[in-house]
Amino acid sequence: MNQVITLAKRPVGKPSMSDFSLTTEDKPSPADGEILLHAAYVSVDPYMRGRMSDAESYIHPFEVNKPIEGLAVAEVVESKNSDFEAGDFVVGFLAWKEYQVSQGKGLRKVDADIAPLSAYLGILGMTGLTAYLGLSEIGKPQEGETLVVSGAAGAVGSVAGQIGKIQGCRVVGIAGSDEKVAKLTSEFGFDAAINYNTTDDMATAIAENCPDGVDVYFDNVAGEISDGVHQNMNRFGRIINCGAISGYNDTSVPTGPRVEMMLIKKSLLMQGFIVGNYEDKFPKASKQLAEWLGEEKLKFSETVVEGFENIPKAFLDLFEGKNRGKMVVKI
Amino acid sequence: MNQVITLAKRPVGKPSMSDFSLTTEDKPSPADGEILLHAAYVSVDPYMRGRMSDAESYIHPFEVNKPIEGLAVAEVVESKNSDFEAGDFVVGFLAWKEYQVSQGKGLRKVDADIAPLSAYLGILGMTGLTAYLGLSEIGKPQEGETLVVSGAAGAVGSVAGQIGKIQGCRVVGIAGSDEKVAKLTSEFGFDAAINYNTTDDMATAIAENCPDGVDVYFDNVAGEISDGVHQNMNRFGRIINCGAISGYNDTSVPTGPRVEMMLIKKSLLMQGFIVGNYEDKFPKASKQLAEWLGEEKLKFSETVVEGFENIPKAFLDLFEGKNRGKMVVKI
Repeated sequence: MNQVITLAKRPVGKPSMSDFSLTTEDKPSPADGEILLHAAYVSVDPYMRGRMSDAESYIHPFEVNKPIEGLAVAEVVESKNSDFEAGDFVVGFLAWKEYQVSQGKGLRKVDADIAPLSAYLGILGMTGLTAYLGLSEIGKPQEGETLVVSGAAGAVGSVAGQIGKIQGCRVVGIAGSDEKVAKLTSEFGFDAAINYNTTDDMATAIAENCPDGVDVYFDNVAGEISDGVHQNMNRFGRIINCGAISGYNDTSVPTGPRVEMMLIKKSLLMQGFIVGNYEDKFPKASKQLAEWLGEEKLKFSETVVEGFENIPKAFLDLFEGKNRGKMVVKI
Repeated sequence: MNQVITLAKRPVGKPSMSDFSLTTEDKPSPADGEILLHAAYVSVDPYMRGRMSDAESYIHPFEVNKPIEGLAVAEVVESKNSDFEAGDFVVGFLAWKEYQVSQGKGLRKVDADIAPLSAYLGILGMTGLTAYLGLSEIGKPQEGETLVVSGAAGAVGSVAGQIGKIQGCRVVGIAGSDEKVAKLTSEFGFDAAINYNTTDDMATAIAENCPDGVDVYFDNVAGEISDGVHQNMNRFGRIINCGAISGYNDTSVPTGPRVEMMLIKKSLLMQGFIVGNYEDKFPKASKQLAEWLGEEKLKFSETVVEGFENIPKAFLDLFEGKNRGKMVVKI
């Protein structure tokens, strides 16, 4: 039998285990032109919370009682498609199923000799591309500028900060525990890091750690943490709105200081970033990321949970900040 | 004697007549290299409210007990500078004084044969440039797109909407009275206009008037009016944050819905616009505006108040929406 995880119902507020269902179906067989895939690593990502609601968004919602889909690395275990052989590993958007068939459309082969398979879900996958393209397309950091990253110990944030360092910026990270903060400076080379859970006044903490103000803000969290960063933005600053995890589980639109006056007074730019808008830039960006990884200029961290049945729990743990770097599930 | 208007004290909240002082001084005489100017038209603009506070901003604050400065057209009445002759008219940043001397730095000669002198404070001056460059540098409206303009009956808004029409957009204006709304469609060629004072639900009103959603929002007001427009923005929309008059007199930062999730979901851009950042683009933009004005593709409206002593009152009237188009004071 083949294990499958479906969306049992649409979460209201914070998702819980009861929103997911672990079911079984017959193991599928590939028809001509198809391949049979066995999941190797499954990615869980905060943006997936959005697809569990039926609100209008840039990507269509998951359907209730249907398998959830996301990025995964899978092994080709049987091939009736001349583009693939048994033993190939591929990455792409796949259903949360142990086994599934595919015509191969949208799948890309990956090479375990270049990097561990899980890296293709992280630093060499969407999260690495998000960090790289968010900075290069919106943030445009210049040597000597100051970059602040929120959610800095997360999959995207830890890469964004390291790219900022490669590009000659002062880089300050914001994360939610002393352990994460220590890792940012000791392991990922951030110049400074702030634990928002032990900081009463984020605006002052940012000012202390960014003596020349903030030129680029790579924002993964929004909310009150970001209010403190906004107050320290320099004229002509750029805010990359990449995520807003602080509000993903809110059932109404959160309120806060209106930004318009600040944007005008400081000639600031805020822009929503979705990596999928920049597909034409993926090949060049992937090449650069692999190069930096090979040169050991970029490190990546991941939290690996084991077992297909633990995918929902791993997803829920993202909202508790339990991951360090990219959260993946090894099947 | 020479009349002068100074900032008597910094306004708290809404400015009032007591924040200004009308005083007199001796009429100055030009030294070698100087010219004596007599004010002809003085511009009053909402952005000046910001300079009356001492909060950090893109432009230094006015000083208490010193003359207020702003854009004005003046006549050269005596010249000891070979670049100017008596009878020339010039435009530039000048003190609120009937007579003043200047070395001519920053002053530009204007030609009353091309357009009425007051036009150099409006459609051929900063407000015209603001409308043109806000659209061309941030909004980038494309033929067939929908442009919404708030503060649409104001000096900047009425020009922004007309430029949107020249560029082939559907243009919808928001203003504060039935009379203004009627003028937008009958005189300035807007496709539709909404009176926010008689509209309970701005989001629905925008949806009804923008059947294809909103691609570009030229925002002069911010606040709740803008919340309703934001809800109707299309993916990849651009919001030009040109003004936030709804909050200029607030004594604390106004609150409202946080924008980050919206920016991400719709890949939106919000950018603060200050015309002074684009000085290198003024010559080309001015030429285009004068050309459209000559071809009668652009109309301008102005409210002319008479008398030097009425400058403060004219300024205060901006916040009551008493102006139609550019507010100027004829001396």
